[in-house]
Amino acid sequence: MSEVSLGIDIGGTKIAAGLVTRDGKLLEHQTFPTPSESSESILLVLKQIVSQFTDVEHTVVGIGIGSAGQVLHEKGQILSATDNLKDWNNIHIVDELKKVTDLPIWLDNDANAFAVAEYIFGEARGTKDLIGLTLGTGVGGGVVSGGKLLHGQWGAAGELGHITVNMHGPTCNCGSKGCLEVYASGTGIANRMKDRSNKEMSSKEVFALYEAGNGLAMEVIDEAIEALTYGMISLIHTFNPTVIVLGGGLLQRQKWLAEKVRKSVPQKGMDSLVKPVKIMVSNLGEHAGVIGAASLAWYTN
Amino acid sequence: MSEVSLGIDIGGTKIAAGLVTRDGKLLEHQTFPTPSESSESILLVLKQIVSQFTDVEHTVVGIGIGSAGQVLHEKGQILSATDNLKDWNNIHIVDELKKVTDLPIWLDNDANAFAVAEYIFGEARGTKDLIGLTLGTGVGGGVVSGGKLLHGQWGAAGELGHITVNMHGPTCNCGSKGCLEVYASGTGIANRMKDRSNKEMSSKEVFALYEAGNGLAMEVIDEAIEALTYGMISLIHTFNPTVIVLGGGLLQRQKWLAEKVRKSVPQKGMDSLVKPVKIMVSNLGEHAGVIGAASLAWYTN
Repeated sequence: MSEVSLGIDIGGTKIAAGLVTRDGKLLEHQTFPTPSESSESILLVLKQIVSQFTDVEHTVVGIGIGSAGQVLHEKGQILSATDNLKDWNNIHIVDELKKVTDLPIWLDNDANAFAVAEYIFGEARGTKDLIGLTLGTGVGGGVVSGGKLLHGQWGAAGELGHITVNMHGPTCNCGSKGCLEVYASGTGIANRMKDRSNKEMSSKEVFALYEAGNGLAMEVIDEAIEALTYGMISLIHTFNPTVIVLGGGLLQRQKWLAEKVRKSVPQKGMDSLVKPVKIMVSNLGEHAGVIGAASLAWYTN
Repeated sequence: MSEVSLGIDIGGTKIAAGLVTRDGKLLEHQTFPTPSESSESILLVLKQIVSQFTDVEHTVVGIGIGSAGQVLHEKGQILSATDNLKDWNNIHIVDELKKVTDLPIWLDNDANAFAVAEYIFGEARGTKDLIGLTLGTGVGGGVVSGGKLLHGQWGAAGELGHITVNMHGPTCNCGSKGCLEVYASGTGIANRMKDRSNKEMSSKEVFALYEAGNGLAMEVIDEAIEALTYGMISLIHTFNPTVIVLGGGLLQRQKWLAEKVRKSVPQKGMDSLVKPVKIMVSNLGEHAGVIGAASLAWYTN
């Protein structure tokens, strides 16, 4: 009987759950469609997951939950998530789950969970200062500084997709302007292509056009790389990290983006800070969300 | 006999020293011109200061030193400072001073020292999450997150003047582009005016023209406020702070700049993060440098 933690990753379309060992190995996992009716129906699925995954031939030491959106980690509460998660605001998720389990439960933002997993299991193992950046539909971030996951006043620290790289740039859905996410996320790439071509297409289609040498797509992707470069330099100047780990679906499908920023970042900014930084690609794989969530229970802040 | 710490603030033109009580009161202070001959002559002044200020009718509990530039705080070493400080690179300043005193000595970047002073004596007292921003010749920064001063891998965290707010902007002397300092520092304001007018003038002259309604000066100052607004929003999204304390000579001479960003910052960015942040003006006064340095000895990280 090995010790495991239960990780639960709550996304807009699916909820993934799995058991993860102390060294980051995923033993069992399963995904469930995210119910779209109500927050009660989502909580019901979570309670079923807890029942199913704690009645196992392992010693479950705790439960880690990663969720999109803004999380009050100390209160165990989801403040607000994505529009895809119906009524998923002000949900006291930890209190609800405590009704069905006595295990300790940790809740955090999914990008913070990613950073923790990279810190204790992944590419930043052995370091104390790292930044995790997830490039997907949006851009998420998590920061471990001096061995501590940064939370800020109420848990929202690390919203790194919303640092401005161009104050004259397009308005972001966060209310600010020219955020990193406006350029270097799936949604951002699709929107920047629409600005230029007046056509609706996915970021996947933009990347296909880029590979085919389409001029507008090249402008869009080059701009994304430029935004990522200056965003990463800003973060290096801010945090003096040892490692930046890049992850997320968009990055996993285009790993060559990491190669681009590995070349561009050290050429700019303060030499003493930018040159030593290791820029890594997450190796957690397709189950990064579950592993990240589970890592919260292995990490004691 | 009250307990005091000795603060020493090393700048390009003067070295300031003083005794500071546990509650931040400056008891005695003196300034010395910074010797321009060599690093040895600077060290000599520092040793004289230590002798003079520890032979007093108070109990000196420790020595805090704030310096411009990049500091290896754990090694007690200045890595590099400003061009004004001749040969002031790779100086093992703490080791040197240990030759003349047995008191514990702390060394840090001057903007980090400012943040610590605001945290323990100043406008951020009672909070655990704050950002200090100094607007002067350059823009400096220091961050306390969860009650800990952030240092990063080797001490350079908090170079907040070098976050990019406009990736298409002018090249910064750090090597990056469109940094906050490029727009919102004394040097930056003078340079942005020169870009527009082709005339050399000081930031003080630009502010005078601004007050007089000069169109170019208004463009420059409005751009500085815009850069400061987006820079501060980026930092709020990054750190989820309770308080941002603004200081530095440029800000102290134009306190109305704080009023401008108090209005602009909450209108943009994520409401849940930007709206609750208190934007304060440092109240440490003209001796902020010495008080900041001394605060390092009162703050145990």
